[in-house]
Amino acid sequence: MDLNADLGEGFGRWPLGDDEALLGIVTSANVACGFHAGDPSTMHRICGAAVDRSVAIGAQVGYRDLAGFGRRRIDYEVDELRDDILYQIGALEAFCRVAGGRVAYVKPHGALYNTAAVDEGQASAVVAAVVAYDSTLPVLCQPGSVLAGIAASAGLKAVGEGFADRGYRADGTLMPRSLPGAVLHDPDKVVTRAVRMAVDQVVEAPDGALVPTPVASICVHGDTPGAVDLASRVRNGLAAADLVVAPFT
Amino acid sequence: MDLNADLGEGFGRWPLGDDEALLGIVTSANVACGFHAGDPSTMHRICGAAVDRSVAIGAQVGYRDLAGFGRRRIDYEVDELRDDILYQIGALEAFCRVAGGRVAYVKPHGALYNTAAVDEGQASAVVAAVVAYDSTLPVLCQPGSVLAGIAASAGLKAVGEGFADRGYRADGTLMPRSLPGAVLHDPDKVVTRAVRMAVDQVVEAPDGALVPTPVASICVHGDTPGAVDLASRVRNGLAAADLVVAPFT
Amino acid sequence: MDLNADLGEGFGRWPLGDDEALLGIVTSANVACGFHAGDPSTMHRICGAAVDRSVAIGAQVGYRDLAGFGRRRIDYEVDELRDDILYQIGALEAFCRVAGGRVAYVKPHGALYNTAAVDEGQASAVVAAVVAYDSTLPVLCQPGSVLAGIAASAGLKAVGEGFADRGYRADGTLMPRSLPGAVLHDPDKVVTRAVRMAVDQVVEAPDGALVPTPVASICVHGDTPGAVDLASRVRNGLAAADLVVAPFT
Amino acid sequence: MDLNADLGEGFGRWPLGDDEALLGIVTSANVACGFHAGDPSTMHRICGAAVDRSVAIGAQVGYRDLAGFGRRRIDYEVDELRDDILYQIGALEAFCRVAGGRVAYVKPHGALYNTAAVDEGQASAVVAAVVAYDSTLPVLCQPGSVLAGIAASAGLKAVGEGFADRGYRADGTLMPRSLPGAVLHDPDKVVTRAVRMAVDQVVEAPDGALVPTPVASICVHGDTPGAVDLASRVRNGLAAADLVVAPFT
Repeated sequence: MDLNADLGEGFGRWPLGDDEALLGIVTSANVACGFHAGDPSTMHRICGAAVDRSVAIGAQVGYRDLAGFGRRRIDYEVDELRDDILYQIGALEAFCRVAGGRVAYVKPHGALYNTAAVDEGQASAVVAAVVAYDSTLPVLCQPGSVLAGIAASAGLKAVGEGFADRGYRADGTLMPRSLPGAVLHDPDKVVTRAVRMAVDQVVEAPDGALVPTPVASICVHGDTPGAVDLASRVRNGLAAADLVVAPFT
Repeated sequence: MDLNADLGEGFGRWPLGDDEALLGIVTSANVACGFHAGDPSTMHRICGAAVDRSVAIGAQVGYRDLAGFGRRRIDYEVDELRDDILYQIGALEAFCRVAGGRVAYVKPHGALYNTAAVDEGQASAVVAAVVAYDSTLPVLCQPGSVLAGIAASAGLKAVGEGFADRGYRADGTLMPRSLPGAVLHDPDKVVTRAVRMAVDQVVEAPDGALVPTPVASICVHGDTPGAVDLASRVRNGLAAADLVVAPFT
Repeated sequence: MDLNADLGEGFGRWPLGDDEALLGIVTSANVACGFHAGDPSTMHRICGAAVDRSVAIGAQVGYRDLAGFGRRRIDYEVDELRDDILYQIGALEAFCRVAGGRVAYVKPHGALYNTAAVDEGQASAVVAAVVAYDSTLPVLCQPGSVLAGIAASAGLKAVGEGFADRGYRADGTLMPRSLPGAVLHDPDKVVTRAVRMAVDQVVEAPDGALVPTPVASICVHGDTPGAVDLASRVRNGLAAADLVVAPFT
Repeated sequence: MDLNADLGEGFGRWPLGDDEALLGIVTSANVACGFHAGDPSTMHRICGAAVDRSVAIGAQVGYRDLAGFGRRRIDYEVDELRDDILYQIGALEAFCRVAGGRVAYVKPHGALYNTAAVDEGQASAVVAAVVAYDSTLPVLCQPGSVLAGIAASAGLKAVGEGFADRGYRADGTLMPRSLPGAVLHDPDKVVTRAVRMAVDQVVEAPDGALVPTPVASICVHGDTPGAVDLASRVRNGLAAADLVVAPFT
């Protein structure tokens, strides 16, 4: 089982999260590529540290929206979005290359992640970028999403991920953050959920139903108080369940 | 002899110059990489067209300054500038790769070009980026400049270029634009000068002195009225002098 | 009757349209405020020239999206959009003040214009900004749009504008650009349509129906070939119909 | 005696410093205006809170350089810099207006502060912006700097500020940060120095010489650990010395 987190999401003078600590915990780093966050020197530093620790590097591609941190949906033309994604993958690749590594997968960020999960145009743009760049690169995404489907149809490997601290609805989608139970705060429950997702590939919906979660990676967050500690507990929980924690790539 | 020009220097809604026409004339395209100009879709289009026409693609790297078009000197830290340059090279490489080509050289743009010609720190940043990325890539620059010297010391190939439409001082540097004679407007004189640079590797200073110009490429401009016509005349002039007009790479 | 056009939509090195010529024709200038286009020096210059010619200055406020020229819908939070608009109005006001004028009205640009015409949240953001800044400022918008309604409910003056070169549907909305007849290219027809809108306050739909167009301003475009000539013809047409061509403010 | 600090220097997702706490301590807030830091919603919030607490609002104007936080010198044309400053003042004024206040002074930020202290061109640009906008606005700057001189010559009020935690050379300039003693870390020494600056208008240089510091404001920093506590101690120290701590405006 893989453990992934968003890294390198500061920008210039503004740090965000504890990248160093997370690099010691996760097995895959979704590195911000400069459009929603992430400056070149941060990318350089993170790629070097990730290669040193054998953490897989993914291109965490987002909308061109520093002010909104890539969290506002933008209605791109498909080709334009594809090109913005290609640009970001290439930029990150330069730092991977310098560090002796390579971009190992692609994961959309924020509103692009959410939009590509339901919107054919934006999902197609992500897929078109990866196909054009390197069709052996997996796309890390929500199992059952539109993006997962289009990626698979195009011959890409769509790798499913689960969120240990999020509530799931019976249809396998995430509960909107506005609903109670959308975010779990109790570390023990988060760890239990992560282990169950990883071992049994299910998560329990609010009504008690068991929702299938075909995931090869668990996503932990790095930019909230206690995030590093929680990520560490999740990793320990997975290891205690006799799972090998290693990159999916 | 190579003929190079800056291409892809529009941004989004704003075009600049006649990229299509120039791609039919030059043998090396300095493609803007998004920091001073150049959006991803333009980069994608230009790289495709350049590969189709066997025009060599260079990364025209600049300061992060869209508002100033990279023409204002910025006092970067060396590492920060190196990383901004690596980022741009990588971004362009993605579009080269998609087009079936590769970044074949690096040329600094605007104030970075001028600053790296005289400033050790900024020249070192350019060189450090190229060395880290791919030390077989040539750097296209002013012969005799600080950048040319530092590049050569680092084992890079520094390729000299000449400006057919600019006045030179006796020491081989360009006349400041504020002086009369700094820019030549007569097409016949420009062509004559280009051919002499290419064939005899000299240019005449205002006092009549012959200044050595060890150049492997002639730079023509694309963003002024009549630019395309002038570039075409220069190419024809070089060909008429029995020079093979081809990429230096 | 007022004649308005978008002005100052270049950015740094990139000009767009013939601002000087248009300032001699229109009576209201929608000046770009730096978020989708327009740099401070351009704003400074345009405001000075507009005041000199007694052309009313409007804040042409847009999304923060230089790369997309404000033409891509962005899903802003209402407060965030209100604040982006306030910021732009204030920035333009500084140049109006220096020129001895003032911001006389507000007009949303591009995708914000289209979105605020149908979306309550974004319309409310525009209205909230104007109410907070100066509730005597009119909002220039599509007659019958959601924005016009919310503006009026909030006690703002909503001024309707018509597009002389666009096709209208029977319900008073513009024909999508993808349909034939969405954009008129024959100058004579454009002028005839403008005059009819201004004098009779109607426009003819494709099926021949007369659609009411309660407009106090006609919008002409400035960034297409022939735009200046067409704007001039429209102005002459209005004058020939004995209309006083003057700012609506 | 006035106490000033930089506020609102976050951007979007990225906070910086404890604005709320500082607003309870300082009497003048240098509010970032969006070019080096500061997004519109932050500006809106800070202006409201400052007016509520009777804290004077200054426009902390900087270079257009989010990636460099305005700390890299940029070689602007004078008019271009003047216009960038006018834009920022106007943008901030909108939020002051909405809050029932006004921009009360102007203070350059970072590399613009340092450059305008020694460079006539950039100092002239700052002064030209303030003169054009409102010549009754004071400029907060280093006593004896080129900016102070040019501001005074132009009829502006140049208000001197002192840095309680910085080492001064015998000529009244700040010690470069690379030298030992350039930054004081002992809170007691910082408070003692602030009080002496305020009461006796002198500071002690490393060689024991007393350097005149004609200051009407003491600057405290907000973005370092312990900054809020230190600012609070400085305020208490000034009050204990029977100084009225109030805006200089």
